[in-house]
Amino acid sequence: MKILFVSPDPRPERWITPLQAALPDAELIAWQDDMPPQQADYALVWQPPAVLFENEPGLKAIFNLGAGVDALLKLPALPEALPIYRLEDAGMSAQMAEYLVHQIAEITRAMPVYRQQQQDKHWKMQAPCRRKDWPIGLLGLGQIGNKAAQALALLEYPVASWTRKAKTFPGVESFSGQDALASFLGRTRILINTLPLTAETQGILNQSLLSQLQPQSVLINVGRGQHLNEDDLLAALDEGQLLHAVLDVFEQEPLPETHPFWSHPQITLTPHISAPTLREETIRQIAEKLQALQAGESISGQVDRQRGY
Amino acid sequence: MKILFVSPDPRPERWITPLQAALPDAELIAWQDDMPPQQADYALVWQPPAVLFENEPGLKAIFNLGAGVDALLKLPALPEALPIYRLEDAGMSAQMAEYLVHQIAEITRAMPVYRQQQQDKHWKMQAPCRRKDWPIGLLGLGQIGNKAAQALALLEYPVASWTRKAKTFPGVESFSGQDALASFLGRTRILINTLPLTAETQGILNQSLLSQLQPQSVLINVGRGQHLNEDDLLAALDEGQLLHAVLDVFEQEPLPETHPFWSHPQITLTPHISAPTLREETIRQIAEKLQALQAGESISGQVDRQRGY
Repeated sequence: MKILFVSPDPRPERWITPLQAALPDAELIAWQDDMPPQQADYALVWQPPAVLFENEPGLKAIFNLGAGVDALLKLPALPEALPIYRLEDAGMSAQMAEYLVHQIAEITRAMPVYRQQQQDKHWKMQAPCRRKDWPIGLLGLGQIGNKAAQALALLEYPVASWTRKAKTFPGVESFSGQDALASFLGRTRILINTLPLTAETQGILNQSLLSQLQPQSVLINVGRGQHLNEDDLLAALDEGQLLHAVLDVFEQEPLPETHPFWSHPQITLTPHISAPTLREETIRQIAEKLQALQAGESISGQVDRQRGY
Repeated sequence: MKILFVSPDPRPERWITPLQAALPDAELIAWQDDMPPQQADYALVWQPPAVLFENEPGLKAIFNLGAGVDALLKLPALPEALPIYRLEDAGMSAQMAEYLVHQIAEITRAMPVYRQQQQDKHWKMQAPCRRKDWPIGLLGLGQIGNKAAQALALLEYPVASWTRKAKTFPGVESFSGQDALASFLGRTRILINTLPLTAETQGILNQSLLSQLQPQSVLINVGRGQHLNEDDLLAALDEGQLLHAVLDVFEQEPLPETHPFWSHPQITLTPHISAPTLREETIRQIAEKLQALQAGESISGQVDRQRGY
């Protein structure tokens, strides 16, 4: 089989070499913008150019090198019947859970205060974190949010989730459907967005939603920048409805240097690193799936285009 | 029953009032240094003065308002046969697990770099954390370390424990006894000390132990300051054997303003806040235990004086 690796990664050999080792019978080719058609069977893609689909009409499936497929599905050249497989976990959910526990502890355990105290050589215990003061709500509870829910419940926070369809999860209070959204928001002080980006969820983090949270709430957005109305967030922070926001994703990435988020004292900002694609785990997963496909077996992780994830 | 509350807490009524509500038939008294003997049955203590035991020979048991009883056991006036109950979890293990995940993510996820990048309005993803590069080792795996082991295994770190007696724990590689210490240290890059302080463990974090860890290791001490040889730590940091140390406990607390730890660039320092005593949970636990004792039932958490914890 012929496999194209299509990614802006400046060092494609870091992928090609271990993929070749895992799939010795495959022919692996790093995509170049000016190359002739390759008659490839499969493509591993991250932010692929539209010309890929014109040049390679024989593709049997593509594998997305990340969890979110919103950008991919927006490409007009994407053939309608081409199966797309998203990355399933591959170490990402553990990284996400760790990122969220870290950012939550920053706030509930007053970690910036302790860093300042060390600088000032000042020894003073802050008031302990009472878990009941910090009910956490997860918007979305897919593969990427699962482990976070488990970790936060283990740490004895009150944890709830809101999902499109009803979902039960040990240690987590479940809310589902539009009718339950208000109750979910009303009991939540730390809101974590891990929803997939679809037509229905775009702009969901807006003034109306933020105003339904508990007073002095915290918003953590690790979904997509397009989930958030940036002006509404700034207003909610300035009016004191929100205490703080932790943002890992933005409408425009990299975030422009002139953007007000960079220097806002109530915003913690990271450059889309909450759950990075891990090369070794990703290669292992995709190589196994390609072997299964070659053996005529069915594999998991196919994107439902209608649903959008 | 008569219960004395003996603690340097400046607002003892925050304990007395809810204790009285939980134990309506009890007589609750806040200790004062100049008060006459009270013929108390029980005492809830944190750093009690020696005169307590002279004044109150009728005590049937004392309850320590924390997990570690090392300071209490050193009091010469402590009657030999007086049963001591330590605090069991009461929310502390979740706080400890959270503290440890936070401090580990600071290092493995380059969080200080991202804080600096925000200040500089600079967008740059750092190399992702590969779990296999950061094997974690827990010295001690008692009630306080249990939940941390569980959380770190959930986050997919390689986790091992070293204990005095053999102990198995899901997802954790177990080492026990003096003979296994070298192998445990040799596979460990992040060493977390949660041991109780006893004659055997005092000074255990010394040059010999630190030199057996993997190169560029991290030490996290959340046990007691007396576990650590401070000069050996500074030498290991300066010689490049250790990458970083996270210290929550110290030989002298509060740490003196002139101490070199405050301004060491490779030391993160917090004022003994990794697992604070939580008032509500502690009151609930001790009230339940006192009711059980009054009903003639046996209760858990008695300190083994011989063992030292």
